[in-house]
Amino acid sequence: MTETITSQKKNVDIEVSLVLDKLKKALSGLERVVSGRSTLPILNNVLIRAQKDGVEISATDLEMGVKFFLGGKVETEGTITVPGKTLSNFVNNLHGDTVSFTSKGNILSLSSGGMNATINGMSADEFPVIPEVEGGKVVEMQTNLFKDLLSQVDFAASFEESRPILTGVYLVADEKTITLVATDSYRLSEVKGEGGLKESFSAVVPVRTLNEIKKVLGDAQKFELRVWENQIMVKTESVTVVSRIIEGEYPNYQQIIPTNSATKVELEVQDLIDTLKTASIFSVEESSSVKLVVSTDGIEVTSQSSQLGSFSSQLPAQVEGEGGEISFNAKYILDGLNSFTTPKCIFEFSGKGSPGVFKPSGVEGRLYIVMPLKS
Amino acid sequence: MTETITSQKKNVDIEVSLVLDKLKKALSGLERVVSGRSTLPILNNVLIRAQKDGVEISATDLEMGVKFFLGGKVETEGTITVPGKTLSNFVNNLHGDTVSFTSKGNILSLSSGGMNATINGMSADEFPVIPEVEGGKVVEMQTNLFKDLLSQVDFAASFEESRPILTGVYLVADEKTITLVATDSYRLSEVKGEGGLKESFSAVVPVRTLNEIKKVLGDAQKFELRVWENQIMVKTESVTVVSRIIEGEYPNYQQIIPTNSATKVELEVQDLIDTLKTASIFSVEESSSVKLVVSTDGIEVTSQSSQLGSFSSQLPAQVEGEGGEISFNAKYILDGLNSFTTPKCIFEFSGKGSPGVFKPSGVEGRLYIVMPLKS
Repeated sequence: MTETITSQKKNVDIEVSLVLDKLKKALSGLERVVSGRSTLPILNNVLIRAQKDGVEISATDLEMGVKFFLGGKVETEGTITVPGKTLSNFVNNLHGDTVSFTSKGNILSLSSGGMNATINGMSADEFPVIPEVEGGKVVEMQTNLFKDLLSQVDFAASFEESRPILTGVYLVADEKTITLVATDSYRLSEVKGEGGLKESFSAVVPVRTLNEIKKVLGDAQKFELRVWENQIMVKTESVTVVSRIIEGEYPNYQQIIPTNSATKVELEVQDLIDTLKTASIFSVEESSSVKLVVSTDGIEVTSQSSQLGSFSSQLPAQVEGEGGEISFNAKYILDGLNSFTTPKCIFEFSGKGSPGVFKPSGVEGRLYIVMPLKS
Repeated sequence: MTETITSQKKNVDIEVSLVLDKLKKALSGLERVVSGRSTLPILNNVLIRAQKDGVEISATDLEMGVKFFLGGKVETEGTITVPGKTLSNFVNNLHGDTVSFTSKGNILSLSSGGMNATINGMSADEFPVIPEVEGGKVVEMQTNLFKDLLSQVDFAASFEESRPILTGVYLVADEKTITLVATDSYRLSEVKGEGGLKESFSAVVPVRTLNEIKKVLGDAQKFELRVWENQIMVKTESVTVVSRIIEGEYPNYQQIIPTNSATKVELEVQDLIDTLKTASIFSVEESSSVKLVVSTDGIEVTSQSSQLGSFSSQLPAQVEGEGGEISFNAKYILDGLNSFTTPKCIFEFSGKGSPGVFKPSGVEGRLYIVMPLKS
């Protein structure tokens, strides 16, 4: 009798018990990679690999792969892949402390707190390999610094695949400084941080990959970043992200940064945000065009729509130089201002056709450039 | 000089100053009536009527009209209509205490805290009259009681216009009790409350109107409800809602309420909610079909999908009667259970083909009926 039970028990491919909270976090981290809408069914699956030292759960969309490492009590080692969405739907409904997984063939059985489920999976052989990068340049980055720098540029990258290079963020590092740049050709954001990276490298990384990295880093204080030919890898104790790098030369953006300006204005960031948001209500149909008129009195912000009506507001500002008027897409200025953390900002321009330059007051190494609209 | 200023000042149709917070609340209350997508342009507008004693702001979609009464300093009386969306977009961006409105012809000028706007309006003559009901039956209702009763039935009304009567909630009042009923023919919810209304009436009111009433009542403790031929009116000090009533006879739903049952089960509401939610993951493609198997041990809940996998869980329950199995759409049961506020509920049925009856344990006058699925 005992023998029968034992042999039944052994007659499985995987047998493992996992901490529910950790599993929930991992599945939520994989959610955006497993879209559930891939035409290649295996890409809607997650790979579960039970090894001696714990369980690895991973997903890939061929552009980017993410692997989580979970501790866990592994009785029998093995691998299986199951639809990520079904697995996370089930797991997210559980309330206990642990969940046990057993698999036989392509069927995964789960059990937790009186709830039992089977999920139909596929053979792990079909699952694409997520390559571990080994060579290349390796640096250690502080998570908070990376998140902070990224949030100052990511919004400026392009969504349009017509110029793939602009859908990435340009990372340039030397031993002292790391610079991040993004532009969609209508506006450009640049930020420099003190890296202390001990290596120099440059790479154009898909903004989607970087935002995914930002999300899965969790509370890890630092991470390892490795750049190697056409791939980038980010690694902490519990998660690894591998992604392709965008091929091609990043545009020589330095040449559009104005070296001097005819007019320089300093004003309150929040005032300008409130005013531009309100002004853009009246210019929805006119590509959110707002006009800034700079005089010794400050800045007048105006907008109008033949259909809806018109808007005007006078903002106090400290003005140096000749003044003048210039029109912008309000949304682009707002994106930049919303990434500033200082109470005041500087706005510089040199006439109607020149780009506008916005900087947080008193901060070095931060630049936001917006191309003007014809008014 | 003084004369010129005075005559300029008089040369307007409306001149009024409003408290910003109250205006924001009113515009947010009108938001769902002014869809902004009506093919009749005037219906995308709100009517602003400045009268001696304050300002009335109203909107209608021809089925339902809502009027807010705001205090305010009225200098010049008059009316104008302007697009509701543009007005609320502007007003929601303001931060001051008050906003001043002046109008001349069809142009409304607004000014608040340094921000100035004009909004292109239309003549108030074109705005449909929102009828004030005067005759009919009048009762006074407690807001909290009404909201509570409504939330126990509104979800069961139909969204399909093919049987208009089922898109309404059936209100039946006598001098002592008010009963609310809603059904989409797959499930039915009934609740009775102690009204003390001093009148008897019945009406089928569009669920959309009732939910709108629920939202605009705000913190008014009670309201006046008037039912008159084909209209219903709800009134507080600050808001009036007028709506058509759905014509036709409400189905004789009493006849489908089972008078006795072969099996009666009592169990924890939250346990059943958690289990049904999880079970329905595995029956998405099979109209959320879950099977309940009742035996002396309790209830076993199971579901399966040829594609995804299968689920089972055993719930403890107190069982009276013969037991048996029956299948339901899990979503329908969940809708009902989510409206229960007791820790336990009663579930009754009399075999596979009979409706299931759910009641919160220990509560009189509350009934939720779900039609079974063929399993």
